[in-house]
Amino acid sequence: MRTYYCGEIRTAHIGEPVTLYGWVDRRRDHGGVIFLDLRDRSGIVQIVSDPQHTPDSCELANSLRNECVVEIQGKVTQRPKESLNQRIPTGEVEIYAEQIKLINGVFKNLPFQVSTAETDPVREELRLKYRYLDVRRSRMASNLQIRHQVVKAIRCFLENQENFIEVETPMLTRSTPEGARDYILPSRVNSGEWFALPQSPQLFKQLLMAAGCDRYYQIARCFRDEDLRSDRQPEFTQLDMEMSFMSLEEIITLNEQLVAHIFKSIKGINILTPFPRLTYVEAMECYGTDKPDTRYSLELVDVSDILKDCGFKVFREAIINGGIVKVLPIPNGNHTISNVRIKPGGDIFKESCEAGAKGLAFIRVRENGEIDAISAIKDNLTSEQKQEVLNCTGAKPGYLLLFAAGDDATVNKILDRLRQFMARELQLIKPNQNNLLWITDFPMFKWNSDEKRLEALHHPFTAPCPDDIINLKTARAQAYDLIINGFEIGGGSLRIHQREIQEKVFGEIGLSPEEANSKFGFLLEALEYGTPPHGGIAYGLDRLVMLLAEEESIRDVIAFPKTQQARCLLTNAPASIDEKRLRELQVISTYKPGF
Amino acid sequence: MRTYYCGEIRTAHIGEPVTLYGWVDRRRDHGGVIFLDLRDRSGIVQIVSDPQHTPDSCELANSLRNECVVEIQGKVTQRPKESLNQRIPTGEVEIYAEQIKLINGVFKNLPFQVSTAETDPVREELRLKYRYLDVRRSRMASNLQIRHQVVKAIRCFLENQENFIEVETPMLTRSTPEGARDYILPSRVNSGEWFALPQSPQLFKQLLMAAGCDRYYQIARCFRDEDLRSDRQPEFTQLDMEMSFMSLEEIITLNEQLVAHIFKSIKGINILTPFPRLTYVEAMECYGTDKPDTRYSLELVDVSDILKDCGFKVFREAIINGGIVKVLPIPNGNHTISNVRIKPGGDIFKESCEAGAKGLAFIRVRENGEIDAISAIKDNLTSEQKQEVLNCTGAKPGYLLLFAAGDDATVNKILDRLRQFMARELQLIKPNQNNLLWITDFPMFKWNSDEKRLEALHHPFTAPCPDDIINLKTARAQAYDLIINGFEIGGGSLRIHQREIQEKVFGEIGLSPEEANSKFGFLLEALEYGTPPHGGIAYGLDRLVMLLAEEESIRDVIAFPKTQQARCLLTNAPASIDEKRLRELQVISTYKPGF
Repeated sequence: MRTYYCGEIRTAHIGEPVTLYGWVDRRRDHGGVIFLDLRDRSGIVQIVSDPQHTPDSCELANSLRNECVVEIQGKVTQRPKESLNQRIPTGEVEIYAEQIKLINGVFKNLPFQVSTAETDPVREELRLKYRYLDVRRSRMASNLQIRHQVVKAIRCFLENQENFIEVETPMLTRSTPEGARDYILPSRVNSGEWFALPQSPQLFKQLLMAAGCDRYYQIARCFRDEDLRSDRQPEFTQLDMEMSFMSLEEIITLNEQLVAHIFKSIKGINILTPFPRLTYVEAMECYGTDKPDTRYSLELVDVSDILKDCGFKVFREAIINGGIVKVLPIPNGNHTISNVRIKPGGDIFKESCEAGAKGLAFIRVRENGEIDAISAIKDNLTSEQKQEVLNCTGAKPGYLLLFAAGDDATVNKILDRLRQFMARELQLIKPNQNNLLWITDFPMFKWNSDEKRLEALHHPFTAPCPDDIINLKTARAQAYDLIINGFEIGGGSLRIHQREIQEKVFGEIGLSPEEANSKFGFLLEALEYGTPPHGGIAYGLDRLVMLLAEEESIRDVIAFPKTQQARCLLTNAPASIDEKRLRELQVISTYKPGF
Repeated sequence: MRTYYCGEIRTAHIGEPVTLYGWVDRRRDHGGVIFLDLRDRSGIVQIVSDPQHTPDSCELANSLRNECVVEIQGKVTQRPKESLNQRIPTGEVEIYAEQIKLINGVFKNLPFQVSTAETDPVREELRLKYRYLDVRRSRMASNLQIRHQVVKAIRCFLENQENFIEVETPMLTRSTPEGARDYILPSRVNSGEWFALPQSPQLFKQLLMAAGCDRYYQIARCFRDEDLRSDRQPEFTQLDMEMSFMSLEEIITLNEQLVAHIFKSIKGINILTPFPRLTYVEAMECYGTDKPDTRYSLELVDVSDILKDCGFKVFREAIINGGIVKVLPIPNGNHTISNVRIKPGGDIFKESCEAGAKGLAFIRVRENGEIDAISAIKDNLTSEQKQEVLNCTGAKPGYLLLFAAGDDATVNKILDRLRQFMARELQLIKPNQNNLLWITDFPMFKWNSDEKRLEALHHPFTAPCPDDIINLKTARAQAYDLIINGFEIGGGSLRIHQREIQEKVFGEIGLSPEEANSKFGFLLEALEYGTPPHGGIAYGLDRLVMLLAEEESIRDVIAFPKTQQARCLLTNAPASIDEKRLRELQVISTYKPGF
């Protein structure tokens, strides 16, 4: 039986006989004496096998390949002074081996090196195909450990401090239009009918509030059959919460405490509460996005009023056509950013074009205060207009101003992208900085120009602000998103708890009463049987863990993720299926390879 | 803001102003003074509304229907002596209402009474359709709370005491034949291919062992598309565990501690460890089943040796044809069980026929020691044979012996069923008794007569006993099932960690090397890269909670279960789906209503 994990052994254990199990991380031969780094999930310890003392074990040790599984019996000893290793916690001790047993071997060449001593990057495809080797490496092992600790911190706070109850909601449920596409699966027992995997437990958690559960949470697997964008997964994990009888302010406060508790538990960081807040309108104005990274400022300024009559056609026409002109002011941009980068062919120019810009106007404020600009601006703006732009953007000597003109959405998209790009280029993000921010007062609806109808910005169960109910179309929602460092980590709202309002909202998004009843009749009915006021939030657990683990992809905090093509390279799922199985399900695949 | 939950208020709070939220459980009018029982998830407290003091609130209170949602502001007061209520924890106090607000009403007649005062049983269909009302009732609210506490106790033990890490494994995975039928779903992005929902995380947890995770657990949702038997669910929850470098004995000991911890946490019961054990062969012999309820004895006795030459043709021929004759001896059966019940038309006779019996032979030992039997036995067994049967079954005066003859499987099935039936009829099961039992030494394989091949009794990753590897076909498995009160609550095994043995086992169940590679190649490959010896177990969480909550159906410990027809009566899933969605997925449903 194992006496200790490898990484636990310290000088206090010197003299103890131990039995250890693990993997050969590395083997070295020092004049016949074999040194093994033995690794398990806790870390590494050095094993010494002495040919004088145990010739058989030493011979075996000498034959061990990396990643062999071994049992070591030996005694903990002090390392000689000259071989102390400060870089590992077990660096003051080693195990003098009495017996070494090979428990399982390695029979093929490793597709990549697993040893902690190796730092070469490995292609992600290989890492995913041999995920069991990848997870042996300290990076992934540590990420899974962090994930475990995050969930543990969440449970501890919600259960022990806040009286939440975890309830499991169904995975085999009903397809309900709620934004993205559902994964659906045929029912064999109820032929011709289909289950859907949940995009979120939204309706069930609301029904749990109707059921009096009062404070519910769940670490819930959710599914979205999306066209694959970078760093999305077909299945992902949510921390899902819902509460009854609480105001928006009470819900926000509780969640600030939760998030602060997580940061404290995982990183030992004290996060100040309350978190800053911006309304949706403010966020779009200052940052061009509803998930701004506020670790750096680079705030946008709307200069439409100043330039609405200017001589530069691109600006003037954008404004006449109902659009805007906005500026991204960059302190020190004058000497850090060359014209080559801003003009056609340059990286900054390209970046703006990819976001929809047709050109990139700019003004430089030279270090001596002189103004320099592209000729379109130099020649077409009056000195007053230029000066006003400088005033309202707060531009001082050394500033670079980047302009975008067009409809609101495009301008914001361009400048949001440029803002992020410039922050990276200028290295404005300090390490270990965490900026948390609530965005509030979202609009209830946005226009879906494809389907020519309003659609819910969050989901159609979001409660409108009471003051705005009179005109639902333009109403603000009682919704709140939590943004950390530019990532949307959580989103929630108060929900509608009155049938009449829920019916009106369904009407606004174009659901007829019949459709509303057929799709959501059970919810509407529940609202008539004493549903309490309630609200909640859902956090993207994968993304939260990614931030805390300081990784750049959620795939690195998921044990067995899918690729961006929604495949599992390890098991090679999805796969073809026997015709016989499909016949049982009464379905036919119409897919023809090559089409 | 709420100051207390209803059920928390005690005499210590007398004099305090409070704000409570909840549901009207009941309303009573005592000469103009209105009494409300206010209910929330914590329990009930009595509200008094006095028309002299607050006429408006009292008028409102008088109009409240059961299940209305209200806010109460008032003061905690001592109840008058004559109205103390010992049956509820808040029975010494009441709330003298200052203000009553209606927060949400009830606009339809309730489909059933929710009040804690109602004890009439409600049809399960109604309970499931209006699950949010059902869960407001104390029985379901308590069951969900118990479920939460069970999971919390599990996590506490595994994480804090035993260093397990929770890892989430995929839900969208590959169809792998492992007993039951998978739920499968079409991939849109990878047309023509299908994902399967996991029947268990078996392969992923083994890969996590290969990945060095060492001690893994997960509260995992699993799926089986089975033909519906009583009290199965298409989706169910497993406590799934896997450990490396541990012997079978170490795994069993750790699990005994876990289960004892759960019983202690939930019911305050001390469960003795180690648990009793039976081998598979012993269990089949004594109880006719591998999941015996050992809360009562009623052990079966094989009398084939005694009766192999007897004159009763049914017995003799059964034995000649390779079958057996077994006896279920029932102490006191002579005077508690009438002949009418055992003979054709009787309930016991019927019970045995439903299990496959063609008749039901019996012997009575009268209270005075005389032997009475059906004539087939009376006339065809010698006195010696009768006496030997009495001796070996331990039959004393007052016993009733029930016989079954035929092939092993049928005889065991009949007598297992009769044994359970008789235990219920004779009320042999004492309340609050919990008998835990390990079954070990299962055979590796059983014969699948439909497919004319061996199949794995547990699953094909189970390790054979080292002594038996020489002849795998008849080998025992290093497997163990945990039985509580006749329910299989958990099942596990050591797993194969060597490619060579895994390949042999695949061969025994009829997988060609090509099939084995195409289906399980990734596992076979992992075994070549340093997979440690490992083993694990999975518990049926729903069934465990059912036992602890003293319920008789797992549906009563699941928030939103499916019916036995695999439907959700609340949301009406599964449902038909738009043709457009199916076209996107490149599938066609061939189901024609009416066929």
